[in-house]
Amino acid sequence: MRVEIWTDIACPWCYVGKARFEKALGAFPHRDEVEVVHRSFELDPHRAKGDIEPVLGMLTKKYGMSEAQAQAGENNLGAQAAAEGLEYRTEGRDHGSTFDMHRLLHLAKEQGRQDELINVLYRANFAEERSVFDGDERLVELAAAAGLDADEARAVLADPARYADEVRADEREAAELGANGVPFFVLDRRYGVSGAQPAEVFAQALEQAWSSRAPLTTIAAATDGDGEACGPDGCAVPQR
Amino acid sequence: MRVEIWTDIACPWCYVGKARFEKALGAFPHRDEVEVVHRSFELDPHRAKGDIEPVLGMLTKKYGMSEAQAQAGENNLGAQAAAEGLEYRTEGRDHGSTFDMHRLLHLAKEQGRQDELINVLYRANFAEERSVFDGDERLVELAAAAGLDADEARAVLADPARYADEVRADEREAAELGANGVPFFVLDRRYGVSGAQPAEVFAQALEQAWSSRAPLTTIAAATDGDGEACGPDGCAVPQR
Repeated sequence: MRVEIWTDIACPWCYVGKARFEKALGAFPHRDEVEVVHRSFELDPHRAKGDIEPVLGMLTKKYGMSEAQAQAGENNLGAQAAAEGLEYRTEGRDHGSTFDMHRLLHLAKEQGRQDELINVLYRANFAEERSVFDGDERLVELAAAAGLDADEARAVLADPARYADEVRADEREAAELGANGVPFFVLDRRYGVSGAQPAEVFAQALEQAWSSRAPLTTIAAATDGDGEACGPDGCAVPQR
Repeated sequence: MRVEIWTDIACPWCYVGKARFEKALGAFPHRDEVEVVHRSFELDPHRAKGDIEPVLGMLTKKYGMSEAQAQAGENNLGAQAAAEGLEYRTEGRDHGSTFDMHRLLHLAKEQGRQDELINVLYRANFAEERSVFDGDERLVELAAAAGLDADEARAVLADPARYADEVRADEREAAELGANGVPFFVLDRRYGVSGAQPAEVFAQALEQAWSSRAPLTTIAAATDGDGEACGPDGCAVPQR
């Protein structure tokens, strides 16, 4: 079974939702047969690289919140994160473009290190004092901490075309699947879970997707039901 | 969309079927949104490493064919392969355990090089004079030719436990999906194509799986339809 999770590194509910999902997955009897893939979704896709501002300032400016409202929201998110055992700095975080992080996540995916990198990036963005938007070398260090080769990460960051199509393709797919926010969880392309639902909801979704796995619909040539195949009893040899 | 292909390196129809599938995929308008994964299936899972014999001898012994029948079958397969532009040695090939090759294919999958390695292994088994069963160093060279690190491949080969569970899990899944021979193609876990069908059948399967992509069934907590999520308009902040 496959679970795809659309996320943004700048999304606090994605950080919290991942922990809730993993709690459910850890208790799922068939967890060893579940493959998890992280997919890209930018909350702020039009923000330019280098256009960085404090999260609280962005919240008051973009959404017209008072500073007190914005801070209360951050405090609330911090409490929700703490309830999942996650560190969360409620003050002093930055907001910026996450496009390069998504490109690195696609590099990491190719090397089987996507989960390692997303954990490192989440921690850097939500828990560490140094801003995650502190230039390419900051991201190179984080990639290396996740087990990627530093030079390879540096080369990807230096060329904005690398993995850009993969990021866009993920975002297009999210829209096609009906996601207008993240985190967005898709199980075997049949079930969807939107948002950082409680762990019990993820447990139910895993159970439901598992138990409702349907038999495949077979497609074959009209003249040749099973095609030319090899099995334990040898290979079908065409007599033509 | 995702296509999983269960195959064995020792399976001539898998070699031919891959070419036919790729012909269809190359002409499929949404080919850039199709991800292909190769999965393990051993035709002869009980054969010990090092238990090697000529293919023709195996065919006469195991299936009670006359030598002429076995050779005619190989000639026929050679003609089918040639029709797809593939080289195929109809004489002098060996048969043996492919377990280690499947373990290497899982290593390659982690590094995004699975398709490269399977092509190298097929070519080595079906077209090259030197046997693909010529010891671990032969496989190390082939892995390196597919872009894997030779030392890493050597380490995997030296430890029979590495990726063994992944091979077995693929084989268990094949059985659960109803495959009793290979190649076996599964599209989005909804459609199945058994055998080296003509390219037109793969084209039809791709088209059908693409056009019938169904909307997701949403699973949510009774109290909170959309969960706690972030979207272009900010993050939902719980007021509790």
